[in-house]
Amino acid sequence: MSSPTKYLLSEDRIPKAWYNLRADLPFDLPPVLHPGTKQPVGPDDLAPLFPMALIEQEVSKEQYIEIPEPVLEVLKLWRPTPMFRAHQLENALDTPAKIYYKYEGVSPSGSHKPNTAVPQAYYNQLAGTKRIATETGAGQWGSSLAFACGKFGIELKVYMVKVSYQQKPYRRNLMETWGATVVPSPSPDTEAGRNILAKDPDCTGSLGIAISEAVNDAVTAKVPTKYALGSVLEHVLLHQSVIGLETVEQLALANAQPDVVVGCIGGGSNFAGFAYPFLRDKLKSGGQGPRVVAIEPAAAPSLTRGVYAYDFGDTAQLTPLMKMYTLGHDFVPEPIHAGGLRYHGMASSICELYRNKLIEARAVPQLATFEAGVLFARSEGILPAPEAAHAVRGAIDEALKCKAEGVSRTIVFNLCGHGHFDLSAYERYLSGSIADHDLPQAVLDRAKTTLPAMA
Amino acid sequence: MSSPTKYLLSEDRIPKAWYNLRADLPFDLPPVLHPGTKQPVGPDDLAPLFPMALIEQEVSKEQYIEIPEPVLEVLKLWRPTPMFRAHQLENALDTPAKIYYKYEGVSPSGSHKPNTAVPQAYYNQLAGTKRIATETGAGQWGSSLAFACGKFGIELKVYMVKVSYQQKPYRRNLMETWGATVVPSPSPDTEAGRNILAKDPDCTGSLGIAISEAVNDAVTAKVPTKYALGSVLEHVLLHQSVIGLETVEQLALANAQPDVVVGCIGGGSNFAGFAYPFLRDKLKSGGQGPRVVAIEPAAAPSLTRGVYAYDFGDTAQLTPLMKMYTLGHDFVPEPIHAGGLRYHGMASSICELYRNKLIEARAVPQLATFEAGVLFARSEGILPAPEAAHAVRGAIDEALKCKAEGVSRTIVFNLCGHGHFDLSAYERYLSGSIADHDLPQAVLDRAKTTLPAMA
Repeated sequence: MSSPTKYLLSEDRIPKAWYNLRADLPFDLPPVLHPGTKQPVGPDDLAPLFPMALIEQEVSKEQYIEIPEPVLEVLKLWRPTPMFRAHQLENALDTPAKIYYKYEGVSPSGSHKPNTAVPQAYYNQLAGTKRIATETGAGQWGSSLAFACGKFGIELKVYMVKVSYQQKPYRRNLMETWGATVVPSPSPDTEAGRNILAKDPDCTGSLGIAISEAVNDAVTAKVPTKYALGSVLEHVLLHQSVIGLETVEQLALANAQPDVVVGCIGGGSNFAGFAYPFLRDKLKSGGQGPRVVAIEPAAAPSLTRGVYAYDFGDTAQLTPLMKMYTLGHDFVPEPIHAGGLRYHGMASSICELYRNKLIEARAVPQLATFEAGVLFARSEGILPAPEAAHAVRGAIDEALKCKAEGVSRTIVFNLCGHGHFDLSAYERYLSGSIADHDLPQAVLDRAKTTLPAMA
Repeated sequence: MSSPTKYLLSEDRIPKAWYNLRADLPFDLPPVLHPGTKQPVGPDDLAPLFPMALIEQEVSKEQYIEIPEPVLEVLKLWRPTPMFRAHQLENALDTPAKIYYKYEGVSPSGSHKPNTAVPQAYYNQLAGTKRIATETGAGQWGSSLAFACGKFGIELKVYMVKVSYQQKPYRRNLMETWGATVVPSPSPDTEAGRNILAKDPDCTGSLGIAISEAVNDAVTAKVPTKYALGSVLEHVLLHQSVIGLETVEQLALANAQPDVVVGCIGGGSNFAGFAYPFLRDKLKSGGQGPRVVAIEPAAAPSLTRGVYAYDFGDTAQLTPLMKMYTLGHDFVPEPIHAGGLRYHGMASSICELYRNKLIEARAVPQLATFEAGVLFARSEGILPAPEAAHAVRGAIDEALKCKAEGVSRTIVFNLCGHGHFDLSAYERYLSGSIADHDLPQAVLDRAKTTLPAMA
């Protein structure tokens, strides 16, 4: 084997600015609307929840936004992350394709989430925030923010969906080790939680309820408290652009020109962070460049089977209205193990890219993703998180297409996290306890009836 | 902060040869004896268990032994591993010391163990071995060998101590995901296991029993089967030398001259792999060089409280006799969470270095190691395995000594693995459920009465 396996960048090659695709888009994003007035929200509407620096980034059209030095200092603990050539996977597939993958699992919490948790904690510290309230499902986001808040001396309260709190103690323990306070949601600590517990003391919680509690906490707390979100919003996507910026440089090191760019997609942040720098170059060259493919779970197929409409970002209807491909804000996906992809909607800029055919999307069933994850673990050694296994599946399918067509293409995908905290899911897969279920159109149609009426 | 945080080596800087300290020692190691004849064992005695290439490495006095290309190809998946300057830990301790750490947790199984699992699997493949039998306690070694055997197409059967098999499903799932067969030990699959189950059907197992089963399996199996060990033996220590060889080079990159070298110690392989290249340079310069400090658990203090004598390597008295500092082969340490350090004896070369005052040793209680682990996780971000937290404790104590004395020294330690599979241990620590226990001298004295009588 002559070509190298691993492409590293030295610490001084960490990106010094985030890339903002919005500056290069040939269209603008639809405005975010106030749920009461149906008028575009302004900075003041968001100020109780986020520091102004993040609100400005949310709507910025600057092409590059400088990464503050204290943020860079923390990112340098694990960035730049490695890019690998998947020689062993190529051999296992017997494909003429060249496969590369960027690996975000080397971060302290094991995923891409700290890329945005760190700047969010930093801007909050700068704005005088003493405390942050957030929600978490399986704990990827909560643990990343716990790490980041620890770095900037901010207290963190995490409302963790009760069923995950009980069934997945490892990520909870990780948050606590990093100094966060974690409570099962619904909790008696907020009015939102108390209302739900009064009606249903045995409620096992949901992400929608946990968001309600965190928002409720942020706006009513006595110490200066803000709220933080780990995906969907444009400032979150912006912070993730370090992934793709590094990958573009690493592919140049490898003398490789990508033909296909693949990422998994839930709320959109790891996909956007990985893909947008490639789209920048594609837009610049008048559309010449790689195909960009988003892989979503068949259990939550917002891009491929959702409707394009204004909808709430959360189940409890507390957020502003966003125009997006949505399955309906009270759609509850099957409890697939890729918890990070179980979202009914999608980040606004991704929806506009899809609508304008600048990116493609495919939905894949769960079993096929675990099959891909195990093949990847056995060939490349790294155990993918169930979310990341969706991207592996997408890349494998592209490589098998190359084999069938007898052509060599260069495929690059984002392995957004490791599966060290998801081994019980792999056990269920290996013991044959996971089955795929159809998602009947009637279920989707029913969920869509809850879309808010627009004037 | 001006100096960098992370010191990376490019893929072509991976060591091309293992370093063998034995070539440079001013004394020879005591012979390993046959338990029956009390005569030195020869290669033929070991041939049923190990391929000849490993037996030759076990007694080699060559200074450098070339690493085969197919082994390098696999090691390159994660090697060279990073070395970090622990700026944040230094700040947290307010110490004038400079602290560096080498990080082995980036390997597929999350520890240093694959450094030897990969060459062991390779030499077995070369010798025509179709199948390997091994034992594992908590699963660090078993998962590393599962990964390595997968790479070289060798079938693996792991006898996992039953209590770990039941309580720690994550590492078992990892082994299975990589394609190994795992059974709880004692098992009905071997004569050794059946004998024990006949006497005590509820036996929860021990490392000693699991070793007996794996050895029993290897010598009686119908397909060509060998046995493999993850520490203690000299060829294992040899393979780990890549850790220290890289660190020496990385410290040169950082323009740093170490004053103190710290590692944790159980059977000795991660400590030796890290420290021996530093000792090479120290021996060369006539004793000028860093202090080298081994940190062992107070629950299994073989160097600091053991007796120097010939003893068995295992509880079941199946191995040859080795001259070492031992607590007695039937000494059962407290069930501390650093399972990888719960060993009654110590690798031969380490014992001779200690006896000749070329290295120091300190025993630390468990609570102090978790305190260090949490401080490290909160400052540097990486969650140390409980074993690695012993090295963190040692480094912190040296840094605090610098602070008390008002002097700046350069401390480097080996962070041999992450704690992603040990979070329940951290939870127990954080909830106050872990206590330290004295190890009365009478217990040690009693265990030593089981040492074999020597002619």
